[in-house]
Amino acid sequence: MDYEKYMRIALSEAREAELEGEVPIGAVVVCGDKVIAKAHNRTEHLHDVTAHAEIMAITSAEDYMDAKYLTDCTLFVTVEPCVMCAGALAWAQVSEIVYGAADEKRGFSRYSREILHPRTKLKSGVLADECEKIMKDFFAKKRK
Amino acid sequence: MDYEKYMRIALSEAREAELEGEVPIGAVVVCGDKVIAKAHNRTEHLHDVTAHAEIMAITSAEDYMDAKYLTDCTLFVTVEPCVMCAGALAWAQVSEIVYGAADEKRGFSRYSREILHPRTKLKSGVLADECEKIMKDFFAKKRK
Repeated sequence: MDYEKYMRIALSEAREAELEGEVPIGAVVVCGDKVIAKAHNRTEHLHDVTAHAEIMAITSAEDYMDAKYLTDCTLFVTVEPCVMCAGALAWAQVSEIVYGAADEKRGFSRYSREILHPRTKLKSGVLADECEKIMKDFFAKKRK
Repeated sequence: MDYEKYMRIALSEAREAELEGEVPIGAVVVCGDKVIAKAHNRTEHLHDVTAHAEIMAITSAEDYMDAKYLTDCTLFVTVEPCVMCAGALAWAQVSEIVYGAADEKRGFSRYSREILHPRTKLKSGVLADECEKIMKDFFAKKRK
């Protein structure tokens, strides 16, 4: 699988979020070689703490597949999923999770790898520098 | 706070879920002495693993409050929240979580109390027998 290709699509979603004043995180769901869902963080706009990129990408992909489980799908996300999103990805039983930048404070791996479904593969660090830079720039601008 | 009164409303939501063929879990959000959101599990109907009672109650309450945080609200749920829902409740910064039956397999407390927001109070075991019975009856019927 061309990890960087799909992470670039997730990054373009993150940039969409940034333009909307949202924390710039983007996600895509890939099934075979097809992107079946794209989403970005919209918590501010929707006033909804559950509107993370991953949650909306999962909901959108399940809607597209007309199915509850995403066992043949890979989720790409620019930043390590939080506990909420890792829990959602476990319920969805995704085949693989690929993330860019680590999130030491809020990332699920601070707790336990067991939060994920036992059959879900995990890959980290794809375009990590770009994924991290867009976050750092966003928060640096916010602090000004 | 009259814990049993609000848990009974959550239980009536759980019964709604049961009637719809869904795993019977219900949730309500209370602010002051007002119920501002009620929801039940709808994962089957919506083909959406994120459609847990708690997630939908949070989204609905935030919509009602027109705010991202539920710092003055208590969430009642008939069964111990899973990791996904505990993570969502942490983001929402609810004042208190009150649950009925424990969930040893899927409940968040299997991992860490730290998944919750540090200011969130936690109360368990309210009408636990009733909350557990409705779940057991549902799965017993399913296995038949």
